[in-house]
Amino acid sequence: MIVQLEQHITDEQLTSLRNKLTELGLKITEVKTQKARYFVALGRQEFDIRLVGKQPGVRDVHRVTDAYKLVSRKWKVHPTVIDLGDDVRVEEGGCALMLGPCSLENEVQVRHTAEFLASKGVKIMRGGAFKPRSSPYSFRGLGIEGLKMFSSVVRPLGIKVISEVLEISQIREMYDYVDIYQVGTRNTQNFNLLHELGRVDKPVLIKRGMSGTLEELLQSAEYVFANGNEKIILCERGIRTYEKAYRNTLDLNAVPVLKEKSHLPVVVDPSHGIGIRRHVTPLALAAVMAGADGILAEIHEAPECALSDADQTLNFDEATSLIEGCVRTLQLRQELL
Amino acid sequence: MIVQLEQHITDEQLTSLRNKLTELGLKITEVKTQKARYFVALGRQEFDIRLVGKQPGVRDVHRVTDAYKLVSRKWKVHPTVIDLGDDVRVEEGGCALMLGPCSLENEVQVRHTAEFLASKGVKIMRGGAFKPRSSPYSFRGLGIEGLKMFSSVVRPLGIKVISEVLEISQIREMYDYVDIYQVGTRNTQNFNLLHELGRVDKPVLIKRGMSGTLEELLQSAEYVFANGNEKIILCERGIRTYEKAYRNTLDLNAVPVLKEKSHLPVVVDPSHGIGIRRHVTPLALAAVMAGADGILAEIHEAPECALSDADQTLNFDEATSLIEGCVRTLQLRQELL
Amino acid sequence: MIVQLEQHITDEQLTSLRNKLTELGLKITEVKTQKARYFVALGRQEFDIRLVGKQPGVRDVHRVTDAYKLVSRKWKVHPTVIDLGDDVRVEEGGCALMLGPCSLENEVQVRHTAEFLASKGVKIMRGGAFKPRSSPYSFRGLGIEGLKMFSSVVRPLGIKVISEVLEISQIREMYDYVDIYQVGTRNTQNFNLLHELGRVDKPVLIKRGMSGTLEELLQSAEYVFANGNEKIILCERGIRTYEKAYRNTLDLNAVPVLKEKSHLPVVVDPSHGIGIRRHVTPLALAAVMAGADGILAEIHEAPECALSDADQTLNFDEATSLIEGCVRTLQLRQELL
Amino acid sequence: MIVQLEQHITDEQLTSLRNKLTELGLKITEVKTQKARYFVALGRQEFDIRLVGKQPGVRDVHRVTDAYKLVSRKWKVHPTVIDLGDDVRVEEGGCALMLGPCSLENEVQVRHTAEFLASKGVKIMRGGAFKPRSSPYSFRGLGIEGLKMFSSVVRPLGIKVISEVLEISQIREMYDYVDIYQVGTRNTQNFNLLHELGRVDKPVLIKRGMSGTLEELLQSAEYVFANGNEKIILCERGIRTYEKAYRNTLDLNAVPVLKEKSHLPVVVDPSHGIGIRRHVTPLALAAVMAGADGILAEIHEAPECALSDADQTLNFDEATSLIEGCVRTLQLRQELL
Repeated sequence: MIVQLEQHITDEQLTSLRNKLTELGLKITEVKTQKARYFVALGRQEFDIRLVGKQPGVRDVHRVTDAYKLVSRKWKVHPTVIDLGDDVRVEEGGCALMLGPCSLENEVQVRHTAEFLASKGVKIMRGGAFKPRSSPYSFRGLGIEGLKMFSSVVRPLGIKVISEVLEISQIREMYDYVDIYQVGTRNTQNFNLLHELGRVDKPVLIKRGMSGTLEELLQSAEYVFANGNEKIILCERGIRTYEKAYRNTLDLNAVPVLKEKSHLPVVVDPSHGIGIRRHVTPLALAAVMAGADGILAEIHEAPECALSDADQTLNFDEATSLIEGCVRTLQLRQELL
Repeated sequence: MIVQLEQHITDEQLTSLRNKLTELGLKITEVKTQKARYFVALGRQEFDIRLVGKQPGVRDVHRVTDAYKLVSRKWKVHPTVIDLGDDVRVEEGGCALMLGPCSLENEVQVRHTAEFLASKGVKIMRGGAFKPRSSPYSFRGLGIEGLKMFSSVVRPLGIKVISEVLEISQIREMYDYVDIYQVGTRNTQNFNLLHELGRVDKPVLIKRGMSGTLEELLQSAEYVFANGNEKIILCERGIRTYEKAYRNTLDLNAVPVLKEKSHLPVVVDPSHGIGIRRHVTPLALAAVMAGADGILAEIHEAPECALSDADQTLNFDEATSLIEGCVRTLQLRQELL
Repeated sequence: MIVQLEQHITDEQLTSLRNKLTELGLKITEVKTQKARYFVALGRQEFDIRLVGKQPGVRDVHRVTDAYKLVSRKWKVHPTVIDLGDDVRVEEGGCALMLGPCSLENEVQVRHTAEFLASKGVKIMRGGAFKPRSSPYSFRGLGIEGLKMFSSVVRPLGIKVISEVLEISQIREMYDYVDIYQVGTRNTQNFNLLHELGRVDKPVLIKRGMSGTLEELLQSAEYVFANGNEKIILCERGIRTYEKAYRNTLDLNAVPVLKEKSHLPVVVDPSHGIGIRRHVTPLALAAVMAGADGILAEIHEAPECALSDADQTLNFDEATSLIEGCVRTLQLRQELL
Repeated sequence: MIVQLEQHITDEQLTSLRNKLTELGLKITEVKTQKARYFVALGRQEFDIRLVGKQPGVRDVHRVTDAYKLVSRKWKVHPTVIDLGDDVRVEEGGCALMLGPCSLENEVQVRHTAEFLASKGVKIMRGGAFKPRSSPYSFRGLGIEGLKMFSSVVRPLGIKVISEVLEISQIREMYDYVDIYQVGTRNTQNFNLLHELGRVDKPVLIKRGMSGTLEELLQSAEYVFANGNEKIILCERGIRTYEKAYRNTLDLNAVPVLKEKSHLPVVVDPSHGIGIRRHVTPLALAAVMAGADGILAEIHEAPECALSDADQTLNFDEATSLIEGCVRTLQLRQELL
């Protein structure tokens, strides 16, 4: 059960409500986010929930039978809008483009890419400063200095920054230089990291685990929300299957199903989803048609020379097709559905 | 190596060519289809293939390193067109719609559906007379009498028939009443059945195995082609993964990858691909955007009452959206790509 | 609900029972096997089943809530014994060894292998005459003549024959030359084939589908039983997963779970289960320890020269270790569990 | 290429070796562990490696073509022995038992379990103080105080402690109270955590990722080794597949294959591997037969009351069977293989 509290609930009312819920045999988790206050109350709920709804200081009460609660669409039917400022939003009904290199490499690379994106009207740029690599001998990114350079180059162009966070100590370090924290597929169930990201007032994009279920993804989002941060974006990026003709199997079923289960926006990463450069754009457009609220894709001025993910990265011409295709496909989707 | 023969190659030339290839240490499979004659010659090919190309009676020679040969796009760059007559085609660049019930139930059902399809310009109707059911106690279809009724009702409306064949003895029995034989996901590797379908001059649609790789699907198509039938359609219908939020995981990666590997048309079945009625249409449109040459989907006048697959079957209103959406999406795809 | 009938139930009693069950709203499937007669009655069962149990001609009545009925252990707690005659049995508590080549190749091969097996006390020999091959260009077996040779060589040595059947027309053809029909992983859901195998009075070994669930395997066994043949052996042979370090992933969880769900014996094929020759024996012994009632494995006098499955086939020395290891492991299992 | 250095290599020799390798176009990672010093040198190695072998200060040189290097069996054929002191070892040829509750709950629970284990001669006890839970509302363990209690109770009984570490900040905190750090399945690719565990002189047990490949597991172990810690144990604990009849699919193929690829000991967790209490022991014994160097399993005085993993936890009687069975099975394996 989710109990939405009044903005100005008094301490006395809080205490009385806690007592009431405890009396009813419920276990309470108190949640205070940027936007509101909630009690998540768990336990057998064989009573009339209006009993709780009538308590002073309570705005509304919802039963949510899903394993996840606060991220469920069962209680919050209006979709969550992620507002990055300057009229940049990730939200249902739109298609936010988040393009850029897999790894930040140097200032020239970043500048050229950012200028290209600015010229095409793309408002969010991705770029990894901390790279999770399966081998300890691989390039692991430019680190925090790279991220500082990244943000100093792209923000003056009106572009927002999304970059991956790998561990708790980086959250604070990265804070001033990112607009969206990205949680990678290997950290979808790094609950301590998610917990800490709940304490930050910046949006968090969570990628689905390499073989994660939708329910696990939503539970991971619940960690962030339950610790105080409502600004969450879900990302489908392909799952691991027996098929080896591609890097991953992009699961577009996830798009309409996640959007039905949750009020959070859902974006798709076709670059990792198929891992083959020449097929990224058709799958991006398919994702938009399936209802994606945004596309996260890898681009590079010279993909052949990229320090990571060269095989799945688009050059600027290909990126132009992707961008224009997404715009046109979104229009059609809006007309049709 | 594929050796394409001249239409009018003489017996003498054939013998001499066989000898030549055998001398070169190759194992020959002789293939005669509706359209042409070929030798598929396997073995170490450390010689100048022009040696073979110069033999009398030989039209062209191609090295194909794939495990499958005749269905590969490496030797036949022009896509295969499946011409069903009366201007009905399944082919690259189009989007053939194949709609209808999971199971044929009775004449009224068939007639209403066929009339609906005719009114919408849909030219191919699906409907199962022989149903593979995991339980021996489930409804297993109307059988051959149902198929006869099906074809007698829909053909006068200018609609072609696609229906599933489960075993060799049904091939002959069904011949007069189908325009496309459908091979289901449980029979993708029923090689004896595929072998016999190679001896029939009617198109064969092969569904990907429940957990089949693309290479296995292409090898299955190779069985049909190598036994004499070039008229093959490939079908992606969702694969089995760990995710249980939907019946199967529709794999749209397969669409561009299959089309690149093979000259055969590729259609998508979103009904089985997700198994949730309200999400079938968005995924159908996504499939079209990903490059599908057709959509195979289940519709029923009253899905709630369907004898099988009720949960994933569209009603006529929903089917109308699907049909119109596919048309519009195909137009956009043609403009963009 | 399973209604076991008396051996000598009269036609009158049958009619009266049918009427009774129909009245109760049940759909009846009448099953007559080598051993007994049953009615499988499906439908809402909101009545006292003793009502049915008291009918004349009824021996016993069991509610079975599983999707499969006759193969369930819920009604038949005593395990099924497959008696091949001459004191050769596949049964709970034992460990039947079924060894031999993947493909029958020639008489010398068969004779040497059979003599080796006889010298080791192995009573069942495997060998494929009809081979399902993913490529139409691969060796597809010696066919029925090979099977005749096989049985004529090994039976005089007191060895029973197991061989794979691929299609309905082969059932009759093979009948005189096999003691167990093997249904391969690609045919686990070839329901028409299973149906016909239900009409034969010889044991049927059914391999789990390449990515088949245990429930699907049991449903496939149900097809055979429901059509009249109680002599069924289940076989775990590895499933398809994302892991590519081995051909398949042997799933030994399946052994205790299948044995708990069903009264049928369960054997394990470690050759296909891992596909790496030097690891076959440890996994065979692990399977015995997990409770397997038998081991099906590939052996060859010179595995390097085998026409198929060379990489996973044991030579005679290795087979000797496997045989002796299985015997010792079975003893230990009997002492411990 | 792995360059093993002499214990007493001089700084001068180091510099000269670095220069030599750099000249040869190699990228060097310098590794200093508890036991030895190495250079891991990557790059095209088209030269006679004896060139390097002859350099002063070099003990030996090995080409390793695997993606992982230091954990490969290609250069270190003698298996790694994990010596916990007091004659407690995890090593090839033995079967180390690591039993205990999923979660530490209170002192009575810990004491009873430890006394039971001591009475059975079990030398390593598991117990989680920090629990990764998919829901933020679940019990997340007693934390560091629980771990302190755990070690203070069990160490006086001569029992070693294994417990899970979830994040970097816990490594130091836990140091005095654990004998083996456990890295859970959700952290197998938490490279920052692995990196830090490389800097600690305590053994690290790494569980295979929920859908991790063997190569990924070995790469994760490489992170620990390459950062200075040679004391690593690998753990198979079941993988995620399409089969839902059990929690995970225990993959015993992994045991012989990992042991062949790496010199590290391999243990198996049958509790998570099947997730069904009554089947844990048969699978544990199967694992031993497949070659496991140890068993990690969950036990509890009253599994019904356990705060987590109740369904897969053995009571003391069941644990007694498991312990005795492992001992007997190990004996048999030693005789047979």
